[in-house]
Amino acid sequence: MTIRVSESLITNPKLKLFNTITLNNEVIIFVFRQYYYYLCSVAYFIIILPEKIMELTIGIIQQTNTADIELNKNKLIENIRLCASQGAQLIVLPELHNSLYFCQTENIKAFDLAETIPGPSTELFGSLAKELSVVLVLSLFEKRAPGLYHNTAAVIEKDGTIAGKYRKMHIPDDPAYYEKFYFTPGDLGFRPVRTSVGNLGVLICWDQWYPEAARLMALAGADLLIFPTAIGWESTDSDEEKERQQQAWMIAQRGHAVYNGLPVIAANRVGHESDPLGQTQGILFWGSSFVAGPQGEILAQASSEKEENLIMKIDLNRSEQVRRLWPFLRDRRIDAYGDLTQRFIDF
Amino acid sequence: MTIRVSESLITNPKLKLFNTITLNNEVIIFVFRQYYYYLCSVAYFIIILPEKIMELTIGIIQQTNTADIELNKNKLIENIRLCASQGAQLIVLPELHNSLYFCQTENIKAFDLAETIPGPSTELFGSLAKELSVVLVLSLFEKRAPGLYHNTAAVIEKDGTIAGKYRKMHIPDDPAYYEKFYFTPGDLGFRPVRTSVGNLGVLICWDQWYPEAARLMALAGADLLIFPTAIGWESTDSDEEKERQQQAWMIAQRGHAVYNGLPVIAANRVGHESDPLGQTQGILFWGSSFVAGPQGEILAQASSEKEENLIMKIDLNRSEQVRRLWPFLRDRRIDAYGDLTQRFIDF
Repeated sequence: MTIRVSESLITNPKLKLFNTITLNNEVIIFVFRQYYYYLCSVAYFIIILPEKIMELTIGIIQQTNTADIELNKNKLIENIRLCASQGAQLIVLPELHNSLYFCQTENIKAFDLAETIPGPSTELFGSLAKELSVVLVLSLFEKRAPGLYHNTAAVIEKDGTIAGKYRKMHIPDDPAYYEKFYFTPGDLGFRPVRTSVGNLGVLICWDQWYPEAARLMALAGADLLIFPTAIGWESTDSDEEKERQQQAWMIAQRGHAVYNGLPVIAANRVGHESDPLGQTQGILFWGSSFVAGPQGEILAQASSEKEENLIMKIDLNRSEQVRRLWPFLRDRRIDAYGDLTQRFIDF
Repeated sequence: MTIRVSESLITNPKLKLFNTITLNNEVIIFVFRQYYYYLCSVAYFIIILPEKIMELTIGIIQQTNTADIELNKNKLIENIRLCASQGAQLIVLPELHNSLYFCQTENIKAFDLAETIPGPSTELFGSLAKELSVVLVLSLFEKRAPGLYHNTAAVIEKDGTIAGKYRKMHIPDDPAYYEKFYFTPGDLGFRPVRTSVGNLGVLICWDQWYPEAARLMALAGADLLIFPTAIGWESTDSDEEKERQQQAWMIAQRGHAVYNGLPVIAANRVGHESDPLGQTQGILFWGSSFVAGPQGEILAQASSEKEENLIMKIDLNRSEQVRRLWPFLRDRRIDAYGDLTQRFIDF
C-alpha cells in the first residue's frame, strides 16, 4: 500500500495538536504536532493505522458437488480465484463444501471425510487466502478427537492464518438430514470471529431458524451475519409447499437482519444429490444464495438452479444508520427475558 | 347452542361400544352404548363436550380515525358487526383504536384519553362481544393509577367478560412516536391470554421487532401471535426507504411465524394523521394489515391505503404439522442462551 502525504497537508496551520486524517477507506493518519520551544521549532510525527473497513465486497460461491472430492476442491479454488479477481474481500463457501451432503444417510464410513482444524483444508485454503489476500469462510467436517465430530466453520484471515472458528450449535435431524448422527452440538457458544474485514457472526444452516443465535452474535459485536447452508426440496412435496419452504428460509434470515440491523449473507449449495440408500428421491438443493442489507432488503440473489458466484459490495456504515433509525437494541426488556432459557413455560 | 341428534344416528348399528361423533367445530358427542342382557335391551348414553376449536375465522379492522372519539367508536362497532356477520370469531382492532395516534407529540392533556380496565371501553365492547358471541382484542390507553399509564391490550371473551390483558413491554421513542412519555413499560411479562378460540399471544406494535417477545409467547403456549399496531411513513423519506421500512415490518412479523410455527395477525391503522405541532408532516399509516400462516406465508393482506375489514379462515391444526416438519423447539440450545438477558456482550 502506497500512501502519499503532501507537505502542505502535514504543515497545514489548521491542524490541531492531534489530528486524524482519513485518506481513503483503508488507513487513518494521525498527525501529532510537537512544539520544541527551546529550539523554537516544530516537529511532525505521523502514525499510520489501518482503518476499520466500511465498504466491503462479498463473494458467495454457490456450487454443485460430486462424489469426487478433489474435483470439488479444485472447483472451489477456481471459484475463489474468480471471486477475488472481481474484487471480493470476503468469500463465503456453502456448508460442508468439500463433499456431497453425506448426512442423507447414517453411514459409519462417512466419518472418514472428517479432518482436524488446523488440517488439510485450512492449509490448502489458507495458502490460497494468503496468495489472494482474501478472508475465507470455510465449512468443514471437524474431527476433534476419536469419535468426537463437529460441523464447524473455520474463518481464514487474508494472511492465511485461522482467525477463528464456530461450531454449529443447533443440529437438525429429520429425514435426509441425519446430522445428529454425525455432529456433536457446538460448545463454543455464539461468538463472532474478529477479522480484518469485521467481526463475522458465522452461523451454520439449521442455526438460521433460531433468532436467539443471531441475537447473541449481534450482542457480541458481529458486523455481519453469515450462513453457510445446505438446504433443498424433497421431490414429493407439492409446489406450494416447496414455495412456502423456500420463502420461509429467506424470511427467517432476513428477519435476523431486521431485528439486529445487520447485513446477512447466505451461501447455499445447488443441484440434485441422490440418496445413496434410495429411501428418498434425494435432495434438490435450492441455491438462492443471497446478501441482505440491515433492513432485511435483498441486495443480491443467486439463481435457484445454477452454479454461480455472487459478488456484492455492501456498506458496513449502513448498520449504524439503521440502528439509529430503529433503535431496537436500546429497548430490549432484559429484565423479562429470563425464561428464554426454558424448554417450555407451563403456567 | 342447540344440538339436534337424530334417533337414527344414535341407534345406528355401526356404532361401536364407545363412539365419538364430531357434529361441527364446537362439540364432540361421545355415544356410550350399554347392553342390559338381563333386560334384553340396550340403553344409549350421550355425553356432549366442547371440542378445541381447530378452524378459526379471523376478522381484522383496518380503520382511519379522527379527533371525534365517539365517531371512531361508532365506526369500530359497525365494523365489528360487519366482521361478525361474515363469520369472524376473533376480531382484532388496531393499536389505540379509540382516538388519533396522540403520541405524535408530548401533550399533558392527552392523558385525559386514558381509562381504567375494566372501564368504559371494556364495558362498551364487552356488551357487543356478548351480543355477537365473538372474541375481541382491544387496544387501550390504560390508566392504572394517577400518573401511571400503560399501552394495554384487553382481550374480551365472547361472553363479554375480560379474558385477560397484555401491557406493551417494549416502548418506542423516536420522532413522531413519543411513547416513552406516555406509557410505563409493561410488567405482566409475555403470557398468552386463554380464550375459547385459543391461547392468544397478544403483543403490541414495537414488540414486533423483538423475537424474544414472540418466542416467549410461543413457549408459554400461544396458539396465535397477534399484533395491534400503528405504524406509517414519514413523508420526507425516499420511496426506496419507505419500501424497505414496510417490507421490514412484514418480514419481522412473518419471521416470528416461521421461528415459532404459529400464525400471525397484524392489525394496523391506515390513513394520514397530522402532527398537531406541525414539527413533522405527520404520519401516513400504511395499513397492510395481514394474516400469515405458520411458515410465514401471507394468507390475506389489506390495502396500504384504504379502510378495510379483512376476513380470513385459518387452520389451527397446521401449526402442529409445521412443527413436526421443522421441529425448531426441539433443538433450542437453552444451555447457551443465558446471555440474552445481557444488554451487550463485551468479550
